[in-house]
Parts: sequence; C-alpha cells; structure tokens
Amino acid sequence: MASREKHDRMANAIRFLSMDAVEKANSGHPGLPMGAADVATVLFTKFLKFDPANPHWPDRDRFILSAGHGSMLLYSLLYLTGYEDMTIDEIKHFRQLGSKTAGHPEYGHATGIETTTGPLGQGLGNSVGFALGERIMNATFGDDLVDHHTYVLAGDGCLMEGISQEALTLAGHLKLNKLTVIWDHNNISIDGAVSLADSTDQLARFAASGWNTIAIDGHDPEAIAQALEAAKRSDKPMLIAAKTTIGFGAPTKAGTNKVHGSPLGKEEIAGARKELGWDYPPFEIPSDILDAWRLAGLNSAKQRKDWEKRLAAASADTRAEFERRMRGDLPAGFDDAIADYKKKLATDKPKVATRKSSEMALEVINGVVPETIGGSADLTGSNNTKTSQTKSITPDDYGQRYVHYGIRELGMAAAMNGLALHGGVIPYSGTFLCFSDYARPAMRLASLMGIRSIFVMTHDSIGLGEDGPTHQPVEHLAALRAIPNHIVFRPADATEAAECWQLALESTTAPATLALTRQNLPAVRTEFVEENLCGYGAYELATADGDAVVTIFATGSEVEIALAARTLLQGHGHPTRVVSVPAFELFEKQDEAYRSAIIGDAKVKVAIEAGIRQGWDAFIGTDGVFIGMHGFGASGEIADLYKHFGITAEDTAKAVEARLHG
Amino acid sequence: MASREKHDRMANAIRFLSMDAVEKANSGHPGLPMGAADVATVLFTKFLKFDPANPHWPDRDRFILSAGHGSMLLYSLLYLTGYEDMTIDEIKHFRQLGSKTAGHPEYGHATGIETTTGPLGQGLGNSVGFALGERIMNATFGDDLVDHHTYVLAGDGCLMEGISQEALTLAGHLKLNKLTVIWDHNNISIDGAVSLADSTDQLARFAASGWNTIAIDGHDPEAIAQALEAAKRSDKPMLIAAKTTIGFGAPTKAGTNKVHGSPLGKEEIAGARKELGWDYPPFEIPSDILDAWRLAGLNSAKQRKDWEKRLAAASADTRAEFERRMRGDLPAGFDDAIADYKKKLATDKPKVATRKSSEMALEVINGVVPETIGGSADLTGSNNTKTSQTKSITPDDYGQRYVHYGIRELGMAAAMNGLALHGGVIPYSGTFLCFSDYARPAMRLASLMGIRSIFVMTHDSIGLGEDGPTHQPVEHLAALRAIPNHIVFRPADATEAAECWQLALESTTAPATLALTRQNLPAVRTEFVEENLCGYGAYELATADGDAVVTIFATGSEVEIALAARTLLQGHGHPTRVVSVPAFELFEKQDEAYRSAIIGDAKVKVAIEAGIRQGWDAFIGTDGVFIGMHGFGASGEIADLYKHFGITAEDTAKAVEARLHG
Repeated sequence: MASREKHDRMANAIRFLSMDAVEKANSGHPGLPMGAADVATVLFTKFLKFDPANPHWPDRDRFILSAGHGSMLLYSLLYLTGYEDMTIDEIKHFRQLGSKTAGHPEYGHATGIETTTGPLGQGLGNSVGFALGERIMNATFGDDLVDHHTYVLAGDGCLMEGISQEALTLAGHLKLNKLTVIWDHNNISIDGAVSLADSTDQLARFAASGWNTIAIDGHDPEAIAQALEAAKRSDKPMLIAAKTTIGFGAPTKAGTNKVHGSPLGKEEIAGARKELGWDYPPFEIPSDILDAWRLAGLNSAKQRKDWEKRLAAASADTRAEFERRMRGDLPAGFDDAIADYKKKLATDKPKVATRKSSEMALEVINGVVPETIGGSADLTGSNNTKTSQTKSITPDDYGQRYVHYGIRELGMAAAMNGLALHGGVIPYSGTFLCFSDYARPAMRLASLMGIRSIFVMTHDSIGLGEDGPTHQPVEHLAALRAIPNHIVFRPADATEAAECWQLALESTTAPATLALTRQNLPAVRTEFVEENLCGYGAYELATADGDAVVTIFATGSEVEIALAARTLLQGHGHPTRVVSVPAFELFEKQDEAYRSAIIGDAKVKVAIEAGIRQGWDAFIGTDGVFIGMHGFGASGEIADLYKHFGITAEDTAKAVEARLHG
Repeated sequence: MASREKHDRMANAIRFLSMDAVEKANSGHPGLPMGAADVATVLFTKFLKFDPANPHWPDRDRFILSAGHGSMLLYSLLYLTGYEDMTIDEIKHFRQLGSKTAGHPEYGHATGIETTTGPLGQGLGNSVGFALGERIMNATFGDDLVDHHTYVLAGDGCLMEGISQEALTLAGHLKLNKLTVIWDHNNISIDGAVSLADSTDQLARFAASGWNTIAIDGHDPEAIAQALEAAKRSDKPMLIAAKTTIGFGAPTKAGTNKVHGSPLGKEEIAGARKELGWDYPPFEIPSDILDAWRLAGLNSAKQRKDWEKRLAAASADTRAEFERRMRGDLPAGFDDAIADYKKKLATDKPKVATRKSSEMALEVINGVVPETIGGSADLTGSNNTKTSQTKSITPDDYGQRYVHYGIRELGMAAAMNGLALHGGVIPYSGTFLCFSDYARPAMRLASLMGIRSIFVMTHDSIGLGEDGPTHQPVEHLAALRAIPNHIVFRPADATEAAECWQLALESTTAPATLALTRQNLPAVRTEFVEENLCGYGAYELATADGDAVVTIFATGSEVEIALAARTLLQGHGHPTRVVSVPAFELFEKQDEAYRSAIIGDAKVKVAIEAGIRQGWDAFIGTDGVFIGMHGFGASGEIADLYKHFGITAEDTAKAVEARLHG
C-alpha cells in the first residue's frame, strides 16, 4: 500500500467512525473530525509522543482538542491507537448516558482526554498552562525527565473568542515555543460562512502576538508533516493554519454549515462511502488499517522506556520529588509548618487585611511547598500573591515561581487549569473578586474537572471603598457558591486564612476560591487549636453567655461585626452565639448531627455578610434576619459605606431586638 | 497667549484638577488623566461635537472613557466645558458617598457620562454598539438627523482584555469607520512596565482586524489633531496609538506605576506645580483658562441648533418616530399586537420549545416594533432570534436588523449595551444559557446601568441533552438571579414566552434574560387572559381540588412536570396546586398580601427546576422539597437525563408522599 493511500485510509477511519457514531447517536458534530482527519493522522502517526498503554506517562506530549465539539476526532484517535478503555462499544454509545464518549471530551471519563473542552477557546487557554508547566518542570528536573510538546487543535470559533487573544498574547510573550496550535481553518461557523461575522487576518494577528505562522493545505499530508517539523524547531509558539474542508468527503454537504453539528443522514453517508472508497459497515475498521493505527500507538514505546530508564537513573531524591509532585501530594512537613504558623498567629494576633494574611500564609506555604506557582492578573500588590520565594517567570527564566498573567483574568484562569492538569505544579493566582465574572467560564471548568486551581480573589466587598459599584462584588460570593464542586472560602482573620489555604491545597478534587478583604480585620481566633476548624465549613466561634437566644452567622470581614453585635446584645440581656462560616460547601458535607448543632435552635437567627442574601436561608431560614446588601454598592469611604448600607453591629442589634420584641 | 501655551495650560487644568481631587480623596488614579490630558484637550476643543447645555442631544458625538479608572479626566472635562451638574464641589467630593464623581464613571450619576466603565475593556465593547447604533439610525433617518462619531479612550489594560479582541474584530468586520479608538499608550500597568506581561504589536493587531492605524506622540497637539483629522476621513475604524507618559508632569513619579493608582502626595504635587508652571491653589482654574474651556463647550452650539432646525423641518411623522425611538417608548399598537397574539395562542395551544415560542413572539414584536435589533453569537438557528423582518446587517447595508455577532458572547453583550445606551434601538441577542458566563461581566453592567439589553439564552437546562455538562446550565439561573436589577424570565409555554417578551421590552430600567428550552413543551396556559400574569413574577396556574395540601412551584420546562405531579398527587387524594414562577425578581416586588397568598400554607411545599436549589428556599422554606440538580449534568438523551437526575412527576409525587407520610 502506497504511503499516501495508507494515510488516506487511516484518515478515513477517523471520518467514518465519526460519521457513523454521530449518525447512531442522532446527535453530534461530524464536520470537524472529517475535516481535520488528515492533520490528526499525521500528528498522531508521525509526531505525537504518547503511549496508549501508559496514558499518564508524565513526559508525553499533550494533545488538546480545543474545538471540543469535534469530540469524535479524539475518541476515534483514542480507539484507533489502542487506549484500552476506549472500546468500539464506547464509540457506539457516543453521547449516551454513562458512556466515556460524552458529547464533548470530559476529563476523567477516558484516559487520553487531557482536559474538558467544548466552551470555545478554553482548550487554547489551557494549552498555555500546559506548555508553561512543561517549561517550569523542565527548569527543575531537566531535559532528561521533562521535554515534551503541547499540540492544540482549534477551530474558527476558538479564535473568535476573546480568551484566544489572552491566551496567544501570553504564550507569545512567554515565548512558549513548544506550543503548537493547529487551526482547523474551514471558514465555516454555525450561522454560515465565517465571513458573515469575521474578517480577521489570523496569521497577521498571531504574528503580532509573537508567534511564528505557516499556512498549509490541511489535506496534504506532506505539507502537514513539514509544518509540524517546522513547529518542533520554532523559536516561538507556532500557528499552523491548516486550510480544510469541513465534512471532507460528504458528497453534498462538505464545505457547508450543514455538516457542522448534525448527523449527515443515511444517504449522505452512503455517498461519502462511495466518494472515499470505504466499503466497510459502520464501526468496522479493516484489519490492515486498525493494525497500522495500533502500530502508530506503539511509536513512542521506546521513548517511554528510555524515559523510565532515565528516571530510574536519577538520584533517589530527584526521583522521589518528581514523583511526589506528579502525584500531586503535598510535601512532608506541610502540616507541621501550618501548625507552627498557627501557633505564632495565636500569639501575635495580627490585625491585617485577609489579603495580607493570605500573603503571610503563602510565605509559609511557598517555603515548604516548592511546586506552588503564584501569579496575578496585574494586581500583584493588591492581591498580595507574591512572596519572598516567588520571583517572576520570564521568557529567559522558567525556573521561577510567579506569573505576571497581565490583564487577562479569563486567560489566567484557563492557563491555571492547564498548569493543574499538566501536573507537577500547583497554580494559584489572583484578581479582584468582582472580576471573577471575567474568569468564571474557566473557574466552572476547573470545578467540572475537579482540579486544584486556587483562585485568590481580593477586595471582596463594599469594603474596598472608593472604587465603587463596578469593583464591589455584591452577588459574587453567591454566584461562586452556586458552582457545583467549587469551594468558596471567606476567612475572617489570619488564622482562618491559614486554615483555608491549608484546605485549598489539600483539596485535590475541587478548585477553591479565597475571598479576601482589602481592609484590616482583628484576630477573631485568639487561641491555638491544632485542628483545622475551617474544615467544618462553619463552627461556633463564640458561645452565648447562657442559653442562646440569638445566633449570628457571619463570614470574613463581617465576623468582627457579628462579635461586636454579640457584645451589644449580651449587654442587653440576650445571650448570643457567633458562628463563623468560612466555607458553605464544606459545612454541607458535615453530618446531620454536626449541622444541627451548629445551626442550633436560638429564637433569632441572623446572617451578616456584605453580599446578597441568596444562599443564607439554609442557615437562618426564610424568617431569619439578614444584614447585608440588597443591591449594588456605591463609591465612598469604607466606614460611610458600611453605615449607609446598614451593615454594622448597631444595625444588627437593632434588627434582632425588633424581632425579639416584635 | 500663543496657541501652544494655551493648549498646555488647558491640558494642565485637567492635570491639576485630577491630581488635587485624588489627593483630597486620598484615593484614585491620577496617572491616566495627567498622561491623556493633551489628547483629551485636542479632542474636546477641536473635534468633539457636544453641547454641555444639551447633554442628551441625540446627534452628539459620543466620548467613552474605556479606561474608567481615569475618571478624573472625564469629570475634569465635564466641569471645564460647563456641564451644569458637574460643579467644582462635585470635583472636591470625588469618590465620596453621594457625589456624582464616583471612583469610576457611573452612567446616570452625571450628564455627559455615556456609559459606566471601570472593568477594563467594557467601554471598548460598548463603543462598537454606539458606532453601530449610529449607522443603523443613520440608515433610517439619514445624515440630516444622525451623523456622529464615537471616540474611545482606552488603556493598555483595555487592550489586553479578551473583550478587546471581540470588539475590534467585530468593528473591523462591520467597517465602523466612525469609530476612533485612542490608545493611551503609556507602557505602564499596575505591576510595572507592560513588558512584564505583554509583547503585542498592537498596531499590527488592529490592522489584522480591519482597522486603520496611526502612531503619534500623545503630547504633541499638532500630531493629535492631524491623527483625529485622519480618523474623521478613515474608511475603516481607526486606532490612534498615542504614546504618552503616565502622570505627565509629576517630577519623580511620571512614567512609572507609582502614579497609576495612588495619590501623588503633597510634595510630588508641589513639584508638578513647579514643573508645569501652575501657580494656582487646588481646585482653582485661572479665569482665562476656564473661559477658554467654557468657550470650547460652546463650539458645537451652532451645529446643535442647525440640527434642531433640520429636525423641525422633517415631516411630522419622521420627527415623531425619531423622537419616540430616542425616548425609548414602544410604538402604539404594541400591547394590542401582544393581546391578539395571546388570543391566537389560546386557540392554537402550540407544543413547541420556548426558544421557538420566543421566535414566534418576536415575529409579532418585530412586526410592530421597528427598532428591535436582533442577533446571536453564531447560534442563530439554535437561539431562534431571527425573524422574517430581520435581515443581516452588513458593512454595505446598515439598514437591516440582525447582527451576526460571531462567537463573541462578551463582546456581543457589551455591544448590546452600547446600542441600548446610544438609543433609538432595542438590542436583543442570544447564546446558550451556559455561555452567559462569558457574557456576564457586560450583563452585570447592563444591570448596574439599568438599561434595556435583552439577552436570549436558550438550551437552558439538562434538557439540551447530549452536548453534556459543559453546555448544560445548572447554576446559571441562580447566578443570574443573583445579579441585582436583572430580570431573569423562564417562561413555561408560548403564552408565557409572549408575556415575558412584553415585560422585557417594557422594562426600561432593568435588563432581562430570557431562559428558553431546546425541548418542546405543551401549552400550560390554555385560556386567554388579557392581563400579563407573568408580570406578577409568580401566579397560581392550577388550583387544588380542595384545600391544598401541596403547593408545587416550578419554572419553564418543569411546569409540565409540576402539572403531571399534581395529577398524580390528586389521584392519590392530595389536593395540589401549581404555581408558575416565570420571574423571581418581579415576584419579590409584589406586595406582602399577594406574596403570602401565592406562597400559601400548604403542608408540603415543593419546587421543581432543572437547576440548583439556591434561591428557592424563599418559596419553599428550608424544609421544602426540592426536585432539581445537585451537581453538574451529563451527556445523554433528554428522557434519560431527567430520569437519571430524578426530575420527573413520579419522583416528585414520591418525595411529597414520603413527606406527607413521614
């Protein structure tokens, strides 16, 4: 079989698996897999370093299908190259409940899926983190252990999304030359021709962002191979603009939006079988082609074995450290360091903003956890994310631990996800809580994937003062708590900040957001307790003098107000307890007995939080007293604002007494 | 006084007002106003068409300070040019509670503030809508009535945000040649030099997006004037890259990040006074300079008068229609058209998806409301936003009514805000509800400004089926309901969809989101009622046969399930009523008596919604039964999914009966 014929037949295997799976599911996107099959075939058979038998091999190349709707491309490749868990039955159950072959690639559903994609541009955003993670790990462990490439397949839609600009300018700035984006340039979007909505010169745009670029015929295997070869030698990240025909092979629908997101239909598929000379029934791959694909799946086996030899030859310390990091375990000594630090805090009782106590905790953490990678979306001095250990990463020095992500909140969050997914590093980075709105699509994906991205969100209420309502989060705590599997921490003082950080780092299956103040807060935890009380999500911070008539629940900066209100109320003869609620999500996971005890049966239940009420009824009931925000904030001095919006100890006491006497 | 000296002193007036106001407030951003003072002076004295005495003049040029942190630039200009409500006292109360001079420009706080800015890139996003709005209105009313320019001042931060890419590629594609962006190119961001995080060749990037570009010395008034002159003649939108020194005039801090976001300090300001030869006390503008500025404020008075003459000379119909549209009033006949349509629906009882019933409502609306401008972020066929009246707007034809926004959800929402702010048009546009996350920062600003942007969000639950959890909104209804002043509608059938559309169009002080299904739904409103029942936010859809033991609250696609559960429960002897809840926010605004009656006192209260519980306790209490989602969705067929997640009439009846017998 001539080489070109073999290539074509191998690519057609992808095409027909995709057509047939979409047809059987009666749902899905055949167009991209059919159009990008040639590119993918060359990449997977001639370039990609991967081992289906060892899918988690740390030094594998990463392949990211940013155009996640083309999931059948990836599933086809995983099946054809021999990933054990991607059986032909899974392909046949494409898009069915319980299958590994979800509508879009879901991280964790099958090996070989490096990240969850579908929301356009996210894979591209992740890829910056993958490529940066590789460089960071390389700087620590050297070429022997870390030397791999990141390949992305992106569509027109990925490149239209704003996140693409953030991703590609960050990658260009950092000169991530082992990142290659293959743009499946098919000129078709859902509404029709891309020209309906866009006229961008993408090559010029990437060049302006510090990339090398090349435009090729995406159906010419020679050209594809040459471009990928050039990408391997590139001194910058590289864009390969592969001109393709969407739905290549479909006799009447190829090159149109009709082939993008719907089954082709029996007749069209029969026509494609004729057009492409594919005489096999659905889901049947002729043995010579399956053999050729399975052989390609063995291409890198020797490289993998050589790599294992090099790992075995490394010093025991290096090996242990490399493996620990890749497993995602925290170093021995971490818990002790936190305990020692909490002891110090119990003595010092610092009165600082929680953004500052977060920095103090990070100073301890970064000293014992060498794999944390800090950063900020251009708010370093405000987010307090940089510590003495974290110098800035630059294109000339990847061996540092701080990323200036620039004013790119969404790109930052997506890159953090890529870092977390790459492994070996733990990303944390910051912006203002209000701008979590920008980062939210990637924060949601971190939650869906269950990965350890840690979002440091400062200036967490009207307490930021004069910047006003555009910068004052009001609904953001509620909106982030709404995301499933996302732990929102709001510590009340330096001790709680340390505990929340400990929990965030220990949380390997859920991302965390730390909501932190700009304003100073007194220490509310004044005695050392070894146990991590924040781990309960909510705990009694101050007991009532007598049988509690009032329980006040509060978070973060409002715990101080709750304690002051308790003093006022007890002075008036109303025994009052205060419950600190650093993390709703963790409280919900406690057993019924603990939760009942914490909620208690005081006559009046109060919640104080400088945000909206939504979510608080679970603590105080629908008849509880809520002291917080009922609309947007305002520009003014912090003391004026808290008074204006009625979030004070006096307002709280008054509202409680009205209820008690009412 | 020589012309250059006069220019310098006029620009310095901006600089010192800004320095002194920030100093007095002890908070704010002096760097941008000082750096951009020359550009602003030339623009406002020689180019901008505006009339401080008639700030709402429809044919004024729009000036948008996208770099909203430089708010003192705008406030200084408004004061100097003579806007009546921008007094020197307001300048002195910069950033204080209750002043018109908030930390960032807030739409509605003072005349002359065209849009709320601060979250970076948003103003740039708005500007596309402003410029497009001008072209659309021009196509209808001609050059005599509509012929103005949109100027934007953007910073490095605006250009780093992803939204900037969406905005500039959309503007470039649409050839909005009356849009001019002045980039305050000062090379400084908060963390330090821009080069810490970015290496983009912005001129090449804009050129790649279909813009003309020019780079100038931003402190050279001649060069600025020439560039602005060129912009007026440009055949494409134009970028003026004005190289400036941030904090120009500050003796030691100019050109550094120290001058970006903090008061300069007494000593530095004294030094600036010396350096710039400004001998006046804080907040005092010498009379010759104030006079010169006030004169500049009169520059366009004749143009405004001529315009008024042209308006007066127009036909009575044209004038009335122009003025109606600019006031934002709906046309006479709107209510009748909706009423007639509702009558038809009561007869037809169509079983269609609410995305389809939204389209049907729009077909009626677009027939009687000529100012609606539809669109979609490349999901036209899925969002059902295009009707027979709305042909596509192209660079060659602005006289149409449909925008292909491309795969740019955030840029779309920001442009919609610009259209709404421009006036004369009512923007509505769609994407999938899940991708409201992308659009959220602009949706929040629509709420903060209280403007009529209407977001059509389809595929509003697991009901979208096979696309899986990346595309299935779970937390989005709760997260959008969390935004203050944002009306989230979730209609249950075609009649409710018509009523929600009516309410959305009538809501001139709050934006609306319509959450709509992909799947078909039966008619639940089967009799004609003239009154808009959705206007209550929640209303009794089905009474109980007897004294209600159970009340089921539901929205959208789950109302059908609630009705089926009612049948089951009543069959078992449990009188059950069903309340449809199309809009939480509107229900909260009803009086206590109505709300109590709707909530009722049935023994068991149930809510059914294929989203999370957050927010529902207000209806069912903390002990109510919630039938909905408790985590992310899954990829599969719709029937499988509803069953898998336990959102069925049978599951509901079972849960209720367990409670009744428990």
